[in-house]
Amino acid sequence: MSVELNHLGASRSEELRLFFHADELAWAVAGTTSPNPAVGCLLLDDTGRIIGQGATQPAGGAHAEVMALADAQTHGEDVRGSRAVVTLEPCNHTGRTGPCSHALAEAGVARVDYLFADPNPQAQGGADYLRAHGVEVNGPALSPTHKEDEPPTQWVPIFAVETWLTSAVHLRPHVTLKLASTIDGFIAATDGTSQWITGEAARRYVHEDRARRDAIVVGTGTVDADNPRLTARDESGQPMPQQPLRVVMGRRSIPDDAAIHHPPGQALHLREHDPRVVLQEMHSRGMVDVLVEGGPHITKAFLDAGVVDRIELYQAPSLLRAGQPSMIAPVNLSTSMSDIRELNPRQMRVLGRDTLWTLSR
Amino acid sequence: MSVELNHLGASRSEELRLFFHADELAWAVAGTTSPNPAVGCLLLDDTGRIIGQGATQPAGGAHAEVMALADAQTHGEDVRGSRAVVTLEPCNHTGRTGPCSHALAEAGVARVDYLFADPNPQAQGGADYLRAHGVEVNGPALSPTHKEDEPPTQWVPIFAVETWLTSAVHLRPHVTLKLASTIDGFIAATDGTSQWITGEAARRYVHEDRARRDAIVVGTGTVDADNPRLTARDESGQPMPQQPLRVVMGRRSIPDDAAIHHPPGQALHLREHDPRVVLQEMHSRGMVDVLVEGGPHITKAFLDAGVVDRIELYQAPSLLRAGQPSMIAPVNLSTSMSDIRELNPRQMRVLGRDTLWTLSR
Ligand SMILES: NC(=O)c1ccc[n+]([C@@H]2O[C@H](COP(=O)([O-])OP(=O)(O)OC[C@H]3O[C@@H](n4cnc5c(N)ncnc54)[C@H](OP(=O)(O)O)[C@@H]3O)[C@@H](O)[C@H]2O)c1
Ligand SMILES: NC(=O)c1ccc[n+]([C@@H]2O[C@H](COP(=O)([O-])OP(=O)(O)OC[C@H]3O[C@@H](n4cnc5c(N)ncnc54)[C@H](OP(=O)(O)O)[C@@H]3O)[C@@H](O)[C@H]2O)c1
Repeated sequence: MSVELNHLGASRSEELRLFFHADELAWAVAGTTSPNPAVGCLLLDDTGRIIGQGATQPAGGAHAEVMALADAQTHGEDVRGSRAVVTLEPCNHTGRTGPCSHALAEAGVARVDYLFADPNPQAQGGADYLRAHGVEVNGPALSPTHKEDEPPTQWVPIFAVETWLTSAVHLRPHVTLKLASTIDGFIAATDGTSQWITGEAARRYVHEDRARRDAIVVGTGTVDADNPRLTARDESGQPMPQQPLRVVMGRRSIPDDAAIHHPPGQALHLREHDPRVVLQEMHSRGMVDVLVEGGPHITKAFLDAGVVDRIELYQAPSLLRAGQPSMIAPVNLSTSMSDIRELNPRQMRVLGRDTLWTLSR
Repeated sequence: MSVELNHLGASRSEELRLFFHADELAWAVAGTTSPNPAVGCLLLDDTGRIIGQGATQPAGGAHAEVMALADAQTHGEDVRGSRAVVTLEPCNHTGRTGPCSHALAEAGVARVDYLFADPNPQAQGGADYLRAHGVEVNGPALSPTHKEDEPPTQWVPIFAVETWLTSAVHLRPHVTLKLASTIDGFIAATDGTSQWITGEAARRYVHEDRARRDAIVVGTGTVDADNPRLTARDESGQPMPQQPLRVVMGRRSIPDDAAIHHPPGQALHLREHDPRVVLQEMHSRGMVDVLVEGGPHITKAFLDAGVVDRIELYQAPSLLRAGQPSMIAPVNLSTSMSDIRELNPRQMRVLGRDTLWTLSR
């Protein structure tokens, strides 16, 4: 998914700044909200002062809008006549919690600005409900685009809710493919060694990134070769509070004492080669956001299946000159420049000496 | 060459800001000064106000310090007691112009801050001369480093004078290797096509970059395959005022009507395979700053000869999946991770959808 700025007019940069602020609240809960979206909400009084902030709570808990209303009320703020800025259209659905559209209207909120429309048929209609109850509604400010032949030229930052949007549209988890290469494009040396292509800061960031995911997928080959733990650990090596499910795909057996089984209960072995089946299984468990960490055969399988939504490429400022040449298992493809597939550059992050380039389709 | 911050203490960011300003003046003349360095100079009064600015003139013309003094005097400023901020140690040498150290001392400049020391035995000694004449001298603020095993973790920006510094130390031109690849590391498709991997903004930048070089080097293979012009052209396709010499290396003949011969007199064909010999020839013609634009055999030859000082990697946010796998002609190397060669990341530039990553050794 790529996104495009819609109707943000004269006040665009101010409005964007508010959405970015709300999105920061959402990022702080990313990885804890599935199957619900990570959403952030601000409430402002008529002078533009922030009187309430909220983000989605774990499943069964309150949504961002209700959290923001409660935050304002806790601080003795009057929410009547206020403006809500929220990164997703307020839901109109009674699930484990009541509809946010009703909560906002009842609280007397006068205006709601939202970033993305809710594509979920069950939950959508929040904007209409609010309008019907006299609330001024502006949105969506951004739209997902799928114009592969006409990629946007803007670098639009990544919003926390996007993984969920993809998941709601495709009815499978959003897939991020993680890759690490030298600047000459090698992911491993000719002898197969690939450890520590990137440096300390990049490795630390990988762990932060894992902690925000619902699951990590690797192949049996990687488990056999590296016996990785695949946990999210902090600088001192301690597990972070939030851990993704570790999923291994492939038909061969994994030893009971493989590192991936410790601590127990957080690993799932699927004796399966089809990425779509694996994703279906994860979707049925309420997973929204999956990180594929390789190896090459798994990477190739996800690319071939057309289910890679985002690529995170860690690049080291190093030359290897020869090695495993591409990011994927050897492909017997004949290509011409017309086969090139353009992605959307979304973010460039400097991690010590390395860079992390995030692209979406 | 990589650089390291030296002694910039408490006032570091202010001092750096001044050096960056002086360096901007230098960049504006880059490509016009060889065999002299592109240097920039500021003069400030004791309140910190800029009273004069200057940059190196074409060979035979005035150096940056003399230009800055003249600029101040033209504007009726009093340079006595002023402070000079200059990107290279003032020269102490009478060549086609008089020594800058003498000009500064005679003008009554009270303080000189310089960025890099002059490694040229003929010209150095400017700092000592100034000190002996009662001027306060601070510098060098940066030192070139050559610690391959201990690469700096800071991203230090690229200064215009650096190509000349390398040239003065190694007695050959500074070599920048230009590469363009997809994010999966391919520089061409399997059928050999490689045109338009990167987009419009990147192509425009290549021309700006060429205009700042003394020469561009390609192999006879590229001339045969693409018949390129290799001129620096503006957006409308018109040649820019400043054109690099175009150098072709290889033993086969080039047709007289090859595009590279038009306009005539700006191309040089060297029937030679050894990059060091080619560089020697260019050095003897006063060239300081050379851009190697490929193809793969030439790239490999320069890397093998160990004469690549900087890499400019244009990366497109695109996947090719299969293609010419590395940046270099097929190498029969067996590698392990211990063969990795770390470079110094220096600059990351966004060019439309593409990025340009500049690294130095
Ligand atoms: N640089 C990096 O970022 C990075 C990341 C991860 C791994 N690696 C390296 O990659 C190497 C392992 O390579 P690998 O390719 O064997 O690892 P892999 O892709 O993790 O595992 C491959 C295995 O997965 C199973 N599999 C499941 N679905 C498949 C499908 N659709 N197509 C093909 N196979 C499927 C197959 O085993 P079954 O027989 O069990 O079905 C296959 O042998 C290790 O050396 C590791 O260090 C590098
Ligand atoms: N993606 C990009 O950025 C890019 C840039 C440039 C070119 N290209 C592509 O590269 C292809 C041309 O490849 P190429 O390798 O033939 O081009 P090349 O490297 O420009 O030329 C190779 C030729 O240069 C001569 N040569 C000079 N010194 C040499 C040395 N030390 N070692 C080996 N050969 C030396 C040899 O010819 P003699 O027999 O004359 O000695 C050799 O055949 C074209 O398709 C072009 O489009 C791509």
